[in-house]
Amino acid sequence: MGDYTDKREWQPVEEREKGLVEKLRGITKHAYEKAPAMKKRFDEAGFHPSQINRIEDIEKIPIITRDEYIKMQRETPPFGGFLTVPYETLKRIYVHPGPQYETLAHADIEHAQKVLWKVGAKRGDIVINAVAYHFVPAGLLVDDILTSMGITVVPTGFGNTDLQVQIMYDLKATLFAGFPLFFMSVIKKAEELGYNFKRDFHIKRALALGSSPVRKSLEEDYGIDTREIYAYLPVGIPACECDEKSGMHIEEDFIVEVVDPATGKQLPCGEVGELVVTTTFNEILPRIRFGSGDLSCLTDEPCPCGRTSYRIPKILGRVGEGVKIRGMFVHPLEVEDVVSKIPGISRFQIAVTHEDMKDVITAKLELEKEDLDKDAITKSFMTDFQNRCRVRVNKVEFVHKGTIPEDAKKIEELRKEVIL
Amino acid sequence: MGDYTDKREWQPVEEREKGLVEKLRGITKHAYEKAPAMKKRFDEAGFHPSQINRIEDIEKIPIITRDEYIKMQRETPPFGGFLTVPYETLKRIYVHPGPQYETLAHADIEHAQKVLWKVGAKRGDIVINAVAYHFVPAGLLVDDILTSMGITVVPTGFGNTDLQVQIMYDLKATLFAGFPLFFMSVIKKAEELGYNFKRDFHIKRALALGSSPVRKSLEEDYGIDTREIYAYLPVGIPACECDEKSGMHIEEDFIVEVVDPATGKQLPCGEVGELVVTTTFNEILPRIRFGSGDLSCLTDEPCPCGRTSYRIPKILGRVGEGVKIRGMFVHPLEVEDVVSKIPGISRFQIAVTHEDMKDVITAKLELEKEDLDKDAITKSFMTDFQNRCRVRVNKVEFVHKGTIPEDAKKIEELRKEVIL
Repeated sequence: MGDYTDKREWQPVEEREKGLVEKLRGITKHAYEKAPAMKKRFDEAGFHPSQINRIEDIEKIPIITRDEYIKMQRETPPFGGFLTVPYETLKRIYVHPGPQYETLAHADIEHAQKVLWKVGAKRGDIVINAVAYHFVPAGLLVDDILTSMGITVVPTGFGNTDLQVQIMYDLKATLFAGFPLFFMSVIKKAEELGYNFKRDFHIKRALALGSSPVRKSLEEDYGIDTREIYAYLPVGIPACECDEKSGMHIEEDFIVEVVDPATGKQLPCGEVGELVVTTTFNEILPRIRFGSGDLSCLTDEPCPCGRTSYRIPKILGRVGEGVKIRGMFVHPLEVEDVVSKIPGISRFQIAVTHEDMKDVITAKLELEKEDLDKDAITKSFMTDFQNRCRVRVNKVEFVHKGTIPEDAKKIEELRKEVIL
Repeated sequence: MGDYTDKREWQPVEEREKGLVEKLRGITKHAYEKAPAMKKRFDEAGFHPSQINRIEDIEKIPIITRDEYIKMQRETPPFGGFLTVPYETLKRIYVHPGPQYETLAHADIEHAQKVLWKVGAKRGDIVINAVAYHFVPAGLLVDDILTSMGITVVPTGFGNTDLQVQIMYDLKATLFAGFPLFFMSVIKKAEELGYNFKRDFHIKRALALGSSPVRKSLEEDYGIDTREIYAYLPVGIPACECDEKSGMHIEEDFIVEVVDPATGKQLPCGEVGELVVTTTFNEILPRIRFGSGDLSCLTDEPCPCGRTSYRIPKILGRVGEGVKIRGMFVHPLEVEDVVSKIPGISRFQIAVTHEDMKDVITAKLELEKEDLDKDAITKSFMTDFQNRCRVRVNKVEFVHKGTIPEDAKKIEELRKEVIL
């Protein structure tokens, strides 16, 4: 007990994928035989589990969106015909807004142990688990994983910053699990109460659910080692950062695809689309091609840690927030990322118009000071934008400070007819 | 798996107590050797574990009140010197208001399985667990017990009645765990939404934390079989009702004493005092003579179910709410109970005065109608009061309707000098 590394993490991709294809074929076959809704969907799509020969073949299976899943649950309560066992044999039933009913298998917990181990949760830690336990799976999932690893959990849930501060202090807690923004509000409350967080507290690490603008401050100002975790709750925890913090590694028994939200087709590495998640181990409620609604891309660039998995750089937002320009999805958060790395730009807005049958991208930029080198900034912006978003900006306009309203849409859609 | 009965439940008292004395001696010895605070308290009281020869010998050990326990935790954080293992090896740390830190051992869960089995939780049940999971142990304790028995839990926590109604309905939940008053508010919400609760829902049983005035209505109007459970959270679940619903049976591995809150001395069956609880199995955090602050009495009258344990009829309130009259604690809830069984009395107030060196009890009664038989009511009241509270009422006065304010103290203490 106490080490949850998996030698597959460093295996050559082809070798690992060989095993994964086997598992995918297995879970697909199982779903076809045991989950009536899956059989129906497979049959309607002309798909049969025997067609799985490579991982890419998963594309033949229809994606299940969250809305569809809720609709199917309404029609065939409570699990829409996806459950392969009598539902009164489940450990717990969770409720997402909708309501959408969920359950987790013991296998979900076992797989997630590897993730929390990788991000640094170790026996001996005292963990403040500031994730909600009621209705949704989040808090209990984290609790189950940590306690099953022999790690001590303080189940606080969300809110109540005063009490969170006192508990953290009294128990010399070493690790915080929760949302970075909430963690920051707890730190600020501690400061209000006269503590010096860095000196008086023992928390040295945070398991961060989701990326956050306060992450940098947590790391630099408070010396907290933050690790981003991608928890897409219906399927567990498919990805997390390693020590290198250069994107979230996809776990060995998950398949994460990036698809064009309009066509459902797989996109190559680097292109932004919807994350579609498949778990190959949950036999109770097979999760085959669950559309997450989250936007990101995959990268296969080698990670200095030596692990060979694909990585998700970060979650860029939700499907529907992005805009497709010249065939590429561009998301506000991507542009924000570009802008944040160029000193001098205080605010931006992207306008997308359609002229002479072509999409035109105009970037309006506000500068911190009027006397900055506009040519250099234009050059940086255009280069970085193209590298990041894979489409070229047509014009850069500098506007006076205060011109762009604070709550302005980051990407303004001005095309009359949008062809996706 | 699936049966948690214990043959000791039907053993002759003497036989069962023989085993219990052994366990008490063991846990006392363990606490003396491993928990520094216990050793100090034992030494100061001149007590040594070798002095345990019968269960009654437990009286030689000082009682730990909640306030003392919090104070000791403040002085020696986080567990006041009571913990026998390094605290980072605990599964979870819970937080009571205070804050007071608590933990539960695996043994607590195992013992509590017996309780929930006895009150009717069975494999195949779908349980709405409407008890809070955050900070306090309540929700997670119930969750741990039920899931470890293979029973399906829906972790809803408190509040959100609309959603509770929908979940109960969608999942065809069979059992409700929580506070009766909250359950009633969920039922009322279901009715508001147009459901007929008895017809449209599958909940047939409730694990009721604490007694409640709505229990009768749950049973009679909605056909819900309610079972009262005494959960005194630092120690787990020491008692619960059997099918007969004639008081809560004390579990085999718990020792529950009733003591005079003023002197700390054990009281005989039938006399009301503070419940002091000892668990004989929790080696991690030995719970020896924890004052619960709850008032009740013990009964050794045979239960029709055939179990031979002592029973707690019901919890009568908290220490501090009762008044000691002629050496007996009288609690407002006891008097309420007496009054509720005599038709015609709409409101009451008890005044306690001291005349000629004697305590005098005067009962003021308001009647529903002025023309009721006052002599008969006086007689019933005096008899029932004496049977229940073990002290005699000196005078009964009938006052006009509306004389006693709604928020009047049920027992008015008018003695200048109260000798407890």
